[in-house]
Amino acid sequence: MGVVNKKNKQANMKLHTVKGYLWVFVNALIDNPAFDSQTKETLTTRQASFGSTCELSEEFLKKVSSSGVVSNLLSWAEFKLNKELKKTDGTKKTSIVGIPKLEDANDAGGKNSDKCTLILTEGDSAKALAMAGIGVVGRDHYGVFPLRGKLLNVREASHKQLMENAEIQNIKKILGLQHEKKYDSTKGLRYGHLMIMTDQDHDGSHIKGLLINFIHKEWPSLLKVPSFLVEFITPIIKATKGKAVKSFYSMPDYEAWKESLGGSASSWTIKYYKGLGTSTAQEGRDYFEDITHHKKDFVWADDKEDGEAIELAFSKKKIAERKDWLTNYQPGTCLDQREKRIKYSDFINKELILFSMADLERSIPSMVDGFKPGQRKILFCSFKKNLVKESKVRQRVFEFVYWNHHACSLICYRYWLQVAQFIGYVSEHSAYHHGEQSLASTIIGMAQDFVGSNNINLLEPRGQFGTRNAGGKDAASARYIFTRLQPITRLIFPKDDDVLLNYLNEDGQSIEPSWYMPIIPMVLVNGSEGIGTGWSTYVPNYNPRDIIANLKRLLNNETIVPMVPWYRGFKGSLKETSSKATGVTYTITGVIEEVPDTRLKITELPVRRWTTDYKEFLESMCPIP
Amino acid sequence: MGVVNKKNKQANMKLHTVKGYLWVFVNALIDNPAFDSQTKETLTTRQASFGSTCELSEEFLKKVSSSGVVSNLLSWAEFKLNKELKKTDGTKKTSIVGIPKLEDANDAGGKNSDKCTLILTEGDSAKALAMAGIGVVGRDHYGVFPLRGKLLNVREASHKQLMENAEIQNIKKILGLQHEKKYDSTKGLRYGHLMIMTDQDHDGSHIKGLLINFIHKEWPSLLKVPSFLVEFITPIIKATKGKAVKSFYSMPDYEAWKESLGGSASSWTIKYYKGLGTSTAQEGRDYFEDITHHKKDFVWADDKEDGEAIELAFSKKKIAERKDWLTNYQPGTCLDQREKRIKYSDFINKELILFSMADLERSIPSMVDGFKPGQRKILFCSFKKNLVKESKVRQRVFEFVYWNHHACSLICYRYWLQVAQFIGYVSEHSAYHHGEQSLASTIIGMAQDFVGSNNINLLEPRGQFGTRNAGGKDAASARYIFTRLQPITRLIFPKDDDVLLNYLNEDGQSIEPSWYMPIIPMVLVNGSEGIGTGWSTYVPNYNPRDIIANLKRLLNNETIVPMVPWYRGFKGSLKETSSKATGVTYTITGVIEEVPDTRLKITELPVRRWTTDYKEFLESMCPIP
Repeated sequence: MGVVNKKNKQANMKLHTVKGYLWVFVNALIDNPAFDSQTKETLTTRQASFGSTCELSEEFLKKVSSSGVVSNLLSWAEFKLNKELKKTDGTKKTSIVGIPKLEDANDAGGKNSDKCTLILTEGDSAKALAMAGIGVVGRDHYGVFPLRGKLLNVREASHKQLMENAEIQNIKKILGLQHEKKYDSTKGLRYGHLMIMTDQDHDGSHIKGLLINFIHKEWPSLLKVPSFLVEFITPIIKATKGKAVKSFYSMPDYEAWKESLGGSASSWTIKYYKGLGTSTAQEGRDYFEDITHHKKDFVWADDKEDGEAIELAFSKKKIAERKDWLTNYQPGTCLDQREKRIKYSDFINKELILFSMADLERSIPSMVDGFKPGQRKILFCSFKKNLVKESKVRQRVFEFVYWNHHACSLICYRYWLQVAQFIGYVSEHSAYHHGEQSLASTIIGMAQDFVGSNNINLLEPRGQFGTRNAGGKDAASARYIFTRLQPITRLIFPKDDDVLLNYLNEDGQSIEPSWYMPIIPMVLVNGSEGIGTGWSTYVPNYNPRDIIANLKRLLNNETIVPMVPWYRGFKGSLKETSSKATGVTYTITGVIEEVPDTRLKITELPVRRWTTDYKEFLESMCPIP
Repeated sequence: MGVVNKKNKQANMKLHTVKGYLWVFVNALIDNPAFDSQTKETLTTRQASFGSTCELSEEFLKKVSSSGVVSNLLSWAEFKLNKELKKTDGTKKTSIVGIPKLEDANDAGGKNSDKCTLILTEGDSAKALAMAGIGVVGRDHYGVFPLRGKLLNVREASHKQLMENAEIQNIKKILGLQHEKKYDSTKGLRYGHLMIMTDQDHDGSHIKGLLINFIHKEWPSLLKVPSFLVEFITPIIKATKGKAVKSFYSMPDYEAWKESLGGSASSWTIKYYKGLGTSTAQEGRDYFEDITHHKKDFVWADDKEDGEAIELAFSKKKIAERKDWLTNYQPGTCLDQREKRIKYSDFINKELILFSMADLERSIPSMVDGFKPGQRKILFCSFKKNLVKESKVRQRVFEFVYWNHHACSLICYRYWLQVAQFIGYVSEHSAYHHGEQSLASTIIGMAQDFVGSNNINLLEPRGQFGTRNAGGKDAASARYIFTRLQPITRLIFPKDDDVLLNYLNEDGQSIEPSWYMPIIPMVLVNGSEGIGTGWSTYVPNYNPRDIIANLKRLLNNETIVPMVPWYRGFKGSLKETSSKATGVTYTITGVIEEVPDTRLKITELPVRRWTTDYKEFLESMCPIP
C-alpha cells in the first residue's frame, strides 16, 4: 500500500483494495489447529497461539513491490481517479445553470456553437468591459466568464486540488470539456473559441500563461486546433492631440513613435491603460467594433518547441532549466505586438518571462543596495518628502568611512511623520501597488531596532514598532506611530549620489531609482530573505564594523577576512558548525542559566526565536497540571 | 418542545427530553388489539390500524403549555446550560497553561494573589507597552493579557456564543472566575485586581464598557468589591518645551491650559498620544514608575444608578431609553480626569456616550450636506488637492439655482488623478482611519453614475467604476481608474462658502469641516443609508429639479409639493403603495415584456436589484435541466 501511494501520491490506496489484488500462500505448521467447519476452510486458532511468527524478509517485500501487483494497483488507482475527474466533465448542451457570473452566449452548445467565443476576463471589472463590448457584437456568439484571479497551476496539482477548484470545474462545464478526450476540432464543445482578456501587466501575462498551461496539461490536442485559443488585446498607451488618437499595444512601439516625433511628442497627451479597468465602457465598445484588430490567435508551431516551452515555465521538474531560462533573459525582450499570430513558445519566452523576472525582482533583494522594490520606494519617498520639508542642514563627517572625503550634508525631518500619513505619501508618490497593509509592515520593518531585526535601521521608530515578544508583530497601528529618517541614513546614502542614480518611470511618474548606491553593502548589514521564481535568498546580518574593515582591506589591496554573522544587541553565541562548498552553516545559541531551586532561567533566546512563540513551545512540553 | 425553546432560545430542547417529563394517558377503544405478551403491557397494533385518530384540541395543548411541565423543562434546560458554563470555570491555582500570549504574574493564584493585578490590554502592541512597564514594577504582582479587539457584548449573547468565545473563556480561566458565584472579596480569585488599559480613543472607551458589561452581567457582586476593577490611563497630549514636559489626560484639560497661556502656548511642542502604541517603551516605564498617578478605580456608588446605566448602554431591551440618552447628550460632556475614582454611571454617561455619539456620526449622514465623515473627507481633499493644482478658472452661471446671484467660479483639475494616488492623498491629509479598502470604495461610490447609484455624482469616473451587473462591485482596482471633480460639484458647494465652514482639527491637523453647505439638500439628491447606535437611516434619491422647484416655492412662501423618489436613468415605475404616520412605502417595478415564442424579456430591473444577482435568483427557480 505504501509503495503504491508513494508512486502515485494521488492514489489514496486503502488496505482493502490491496487485499483484492494480492494472494499470499503461507506454508506453515500449526500445533493443534482449530477450524470453523469440517471442510477446514478457515483456521480459527488465534494468531497469538500459533507458537511461531512469520517475519517477511526485506528481500521478499522488495520482490512483492516489483511484482505485477503494484502496477496493477497503480493502474486501478489511476482508473479510479480518472473516473472521478470524468464526473465533472462538461457536455454539449444549449443551456447550463448553476455557474454564477457566467454570461452564456445565446448559441453556445447549439448548432452554431463553433461560431461562439467564450471570453475569460481577469476579474469582474474586466467582465464589465467585455459586457460593454458585447453590446456591440451581440450576445449570440459571445459569452463572458470572469476569472477570480490566478488560475491553479494544474501541472503538479493534486487530484483533490483539481476536484475542488471551482474555477477549473466551471471552465470545463462552460466549454463542455471532457476528461482525457482528444479533440481534433471544437465540434464537441459548447464554444468554438476561448478568448482570454487580461490586464496589460505582468500578472495579466501570468494568467494567460496559467490558462495555456491548464489546456496544455489536460487537452494538449486542443491547443493544436486553429484559432481555438485567442487573446483580446487592448492598448497600453493612448496618445491624444486634439481629435487625433493614437493607440499603442506595447511600450517599445510607443517609445519608437515618441522618438520619431522628437521634441513635438510633448504636444500629445499620454494616457496609460495598463489595467482593463482604465478603459471606459465607450472605449470597450470601440475595441469590440474593431474586434479583428484586437484579437490575436495563439498558434501551435512545433510540438517540441511549444510543448517544452510551456513545461519549462510551469513544471516543478524543470527548476534547473527555469534558472537557465531566466539567467539568459535579455533586457528589452518583448513580444512583437504587430504580429497577428503568437507562437506559444514566443509567448512564454517573450511575454511570460517578463512576469517571472518581475516576480524575482520583487522577491529577491538587489545586491547593490540590499533592497526589495517596496523598501526602495519607501527610502525614495523618505528622501523626497524630506526635500520638501528640508529644514536643518548640518555638516558632519561620517565616522565610519574615511574615503568619503567630503563632508556629507545631513538633513533631518523637523517633524515626526505619522506612519499612516507616510503610507499615504508613499502610495501617492511611488506607484506602490501592493496595498496599505503590506506597505505599513515594510515601513515598520525598516524602523525596527530590536535584536534580530535591523543592525542599522534606516528609519527611526517613535512609538511601538514591535518587540522580541512577538517578532515585531506587536507593532501598533500605523496611525499611532511616527517615524523619520535616521541621521545616519543620509550618510550611508549620500545626497550627492542622488543625481547619479537611474530613476525609474512608471506610467509617466518618476519614481525610485533602479537601485541606490550605499557606501557600505547594506545587504550584508541588515540581511535579507525572499523566495522568487527559480531562486530564493537568505542573507544573515553582519557587523557594519567588520564590513568596513574588510572594505578598507580591499581598498588597500589586502586580503579580506571571512566574517561571521552578527546581530546588534544579541547576547548569545554564534558558531560555525559546518562548512561546505554550498555554504556555511551557523548555530545560534541563547543564554540559559541554572537558578538555585532546580529551575532554569532563560535570559536570551536565539536570534529570531520570539518570546511568545518559545513560551508556547515550552508549555506544549509541560505535563498538563 | 416548541413552547420551551421559544421561552428560552438557548434551551435547544430535544424530543426525548420532553418525553421524560410528560405522561400522557389515552383512554381509547381499539378493535382487535394485539399485545406483545400475556401481561398486555405494550400494544403492538400499528397506529394505522387503530380505526380512529386522536386529534388534540388547541385548548388542550394550551393547557399543557401552561402546566408545570413547561416550567419543569425550563428549569431543567437552565440547569443544563449552567452546568455547561460551569465546565469552563476557572480555579484558583498557581499555574495555568494553554492560554497563548498570557504573561501570568508570579504570585497569581498563590497566597499573595490578592496583591496581583491582571492588566488587560487593547491588542498586542499595548501588551508590549505594559511589558515594558512591568520591567519596572516587577512580574510578581503584575500579569498581562492582550485582548484581541472588542469583547463580546455578553448581555444578550447566546449560550453558544458564550461557550465558543475564546476571549471570555480565557479571562474566566486567568482570573479563576466561577459561573454564578457571588463574590464579596477577591480571595477566591487568581488576581485581586483587574486593570484595563486601552487607547485613549472612542474604541478604547467601548472596550472598557464591554468589559464592565461582561463582569456586571455575569458577576455583578464583583463590581462592588472595592478596587477590583481599575483602569490604567495614559496622557492624551504631551507638551514639551526644552526639558519641561506637561502631560494632559483629557482634551478639555489641555485646552484650558493652552488658553491660560495665551500667546505663549506656541512655544511648546505638542504631541498627541491617542493610541497606546504612540508611547515608547521608555514612556511605558515612566508611566509604571509613577503608577499611582496612572491608575483609577471604578467605584460602585449606587445599585440603581450604576446598574441601570450599564444596562442602558448594552441591553437590547433598552433601545428606546438609549435613544433618549443620546438625544439628551450635551456637547462638551466629558469625564473629569482629575478624579481618582470613577463611578460606573459617570463612565457610561460621560465617557462611553462619546463612543456612541461617534458611532452615530460615522454611520448616519448629516442632514446638512448628506455626507458621512468619510465622504466629507474625500470632498475636502478633492477641493484641497484642487487648490494646489488650480489651473483654469472659468466663470459660469449655475443654471439650476437662480438665487445664487453671483457667478460661481468653476475650477477644474487639469489632470485626472489615479484613484490609488488619491487614496494616498486623502489618508495623508484628512486623518482617515478606516483603511485603504474602505476609502477606495467610498471614493468609487462617489463617482458612480449607473442607474441606482448617484443622481449627481460629485466625482467624475474615468475607467471602470462598476455597473448595474454587480451593483458597482465590479469596479476596477484603484490603480487602474482615474477621477476628478465634476464641474457641477463646485457649483453645488461654492468656493465662496469655504471660509464660512467650521473646519475640524484632529491631532493638530486641520481637516474637513463639520459639514458642508450645499446650495441644494444633497441628502435628498443622492439618498443615504446607515445603521448606527439607536438609530438607522434610509433616504431614497430624489430628482434635483423637483427639489429645486420646492426650494423656489419655499423662497416664495408657497406651499411645497410632496416629492416621489427618482433615480436618474431608471426606466421602470415607482408607485406609492401605502402611507402611514411612520412613513410612505413605495413599490418600484422594472420593465418586462412578452416576446413571441412564449418567453419573457426583462429590459429593466427595479432600482438596486443587480443583474447578476437577479439572474442567479431566476436560475434558482429553474428546474434542473
